[in-house]
Amino acid sequence: MVQKAIGGAGLRGQSAGETKLCTVGQSGSGLTYCGYDIKELAEQATFEEVAYLLFHGELPNTSELDAYIGKLKSLRELPENLKKVLELIPASAHPMDVMRTGVSMLGNLETEISFDEQQQQSDRLLATLPGIICYWYRYSHDGVRISTQSNSDSIAGHFLELLHSRPADPLHEQVMQCSLIVYAEHEFNASTFTGRVIASTLSDIHSAVTGAIGALRGPLHGGANEAAMAMIENWTSPEQAESEIMAMLARKDKIMGFGHAIYRTSDPRNALIKEWSRKLSLQSDKAHLYAVSEKVEEVMWREKELFCNADFFHASAYHFMGIPTALFTPIFVCSRVSGWAAHIMEQRANNRIIRPSADYTGSEPRSYVPISQR
Amino acid sequence: MVQKAIGGAGLRGQSAGETKLCTVGQSGSGLTYCGYDIKELAEQATFEEVAYLLFHGELPNTSELDAYIGKLKSLRELPENLKKVLELIPASAHPMDVMRTGVSMLGNLETEISFDEQQQQSDRLLATLPGIICYWYRYSHDGVRISTQSNSDSIAGHFLELLHSRPADPLHEQVMQCSLIVYAEHEFNASTFTGRVIASTLSDIHSAVTGAIGALRGPLHGGANEAAMAMIENWTSPEQAESEIMAMLARKDKIMGFGHAIYRTSDPRNALIKEWSRKLSLQSDKAHLYAVSEKVEEVMWREKELFCNADFFHASAYHFMGIPTALFTPIFVCSRVSGWAAHIMEQRANNRIIRPSADYTGSEPRSYVPISQR
Repeated sequence: MVQKAIGGAGLRGQSAGETKLCTVGQSGSGLTYCGYDIKELAEQATFEEVAYLLFHGELPNTSELDAYIGKLKSLRELPENLKKVLELIPASAHPMDVMRTGVSMLGNLETEISFDEQQQQSDRLLATLPGIICYWYRYSHDGVRISTQSNSDSIAGHFLELLHSRPADPLHEQVMQCSLIVYAEHEFNASTFTGRVIASTLSDIHSAVTGAIGALRGPLHGGANEAAMAMIENWTSPEQAESEIMAMLARKDKIMGFGHAIYRTSDPRNALIKEWSRKLSLQSDKAHLYAVSEKVEEVMWREKELFCNADFFHASAYHFMGIPTALFTPIFVCSRVSGWAAHIMEQRANNRIIRPSADYTGSEPRSYVPISQR
Repeated sequence: MVQKAIGGAGLRGQSAGETKLCTVGQSGSGLTYCGYDIKELAEQATFEEVAYLLFHGELPNTSELDAYIGKLKSLRELPENLKKVLELIPASAHPMDVMRTGVSMLGNLETEISFDEQQQQSDRLLATLPGIICYWYRYSHDGVRISTQSNSDSIAGHFLELLHSRPADPLHEQVMQCSLIVYAEHEFNASTFTGRVIASTLSDIHSAVTGAIGALRGPLHGGANEAAMAMIENWTSPEQAESEIMAMLARKDKIMGFGHAIYRTSDPRNALIKEWSRKLSLQSDKAHLYAVSEKVEEVMWREKELFCNADFFHASAYHFMGIPTALFTPIFVCSRVSGWAAHIMEQRANNRIIRPSADYTGSEPRSYVPISQR
């Protein structure tokens, strides 16, 4: 017998399993990783500490963290055949398709044979994803074959260095740390749930992460920060932003970067990235984008009681750091792969294949009619 | 508030949405596509008719079917850069990783920009998947760059011709038609559900199919026919099969190709493919594999009341047709892509993002401790 969906469409409010990794909307500011509030982590930790926490359930001490950073640094080189594949992808491709294909190709070259490899494979993905996207981007757009090595100890600084071919500005590296931390994990969101469904067939980690990237690509999920950027970059003043937003609301246009499937009144990640966007704006010649964003936030709350989610102020923050809009969602991948991998491991540790049922709404039983009689 | 899982782990028995495409275990022999019993379809239809049925909800008439066959034939050529990617994948790769990467790469070269393209993109996938797997297989194993064109009107015959470089034996083509039909669709199985979760973020069809391939790859899902083959090929007589199976049961080894997440007493697809395996065995010099398979079926029912699912007799049937074991699950992809694509379209037509919740079992809230104090 099929149990009817109770929480509503999209399995909303329906438990699909257990997790030790994260709470959303249950305590503190509304987001905890392994019991730690997102605000404390974003303000005090590094992304490498947070990845370690998600994988091991506890924060590392100094020697554990140093060893982990050294390990991740040693895993940054891309296989030759992966670089060749990236060179075959045109500049016009969707960068999330590049990420998806890069991870899938890596799975051909370094296949996960046994689940004993899962931590090693997860670290390899964390270490190579910035290289995968930046190698393709720089080759297809600038015609250069970059090295995927850098001197930066952090994934945050490493990404910025590969993208810009210079060591990251310390402020930018700090903002990127915060960004990677707040995007790292969010319970059974659609991409993580995708990864768990795939993992539940006992498939390999590259399959699970490839699928998760495909889900994150969607405009209802990871694509929101890019859509927000595409909107605000058209506006030169808060006044213009207000009148344009009012017109969009009147037309019932969808405005990206607002509201959330779980949160009802605010997203705890917004204040964290918003403050960094403000600081970055002070040294930017496009500072008006911060004022524009603040005005959009104000109008959306006033008119619709809709609040900024994690994505909205990420748009201006990334833009102030010289990151092309097309790479916004790939950065999300570089971060969320930590949460995905932790969930894949958790699914494997207590697995049952995820195979729901459906309510049938189709044709009654009918008899086959030979084609000559149709 | 999170609704506890009622059907049990893995969302078993829990509705996750609506479908018009398929019933499992509800009427007739236990599997219907758009109201038609699988037995009638497998015995009387072609795979192209069934794909048309899944996409349009009705069987085609002669002119519709002819047009559809012609269209699929016209879409078989692979883009040059996709062939180059396939050539970069070593012979040692997992063939499902090749399928996953091939579809993901195709998504870079022929990106679905608008959902208006979804039927065209689905047809393109149906038409190219046999070429993707056979081009890679023949290049990596035999060193030849095959043409991905053939004169065969059917996907069944086309696949066999690309694999063997000769027109398909008519009996083999008929068996392959049945195989592709019985594998085409199965409601909210794990790979289809993966595709729907990805589609629910409004991502593109290549992302959804790439993820579905990753799920089907798992040994609890599509990998069962390969595992069954790996088992039966060791045995030369029914007597040996019986004693080995009894020993495996005594050791509590997992025996693949038996039982099902939904069916309780039999899988309606088994009798259909079993009969073809029997007929193929009559012209094979490895006919003992049919007798071995029958004995395994008998012992598993006698000892455990476990029945053959769709996969078990597929192993011997495919083997009798000279298909390498490594390509068994990729054939499943060539078929199931029809069901996946139909579900992706159905999800898009009435979408809400699939975002369940989880039961939290982790640490209580705790305060961040600076690393120097850990």
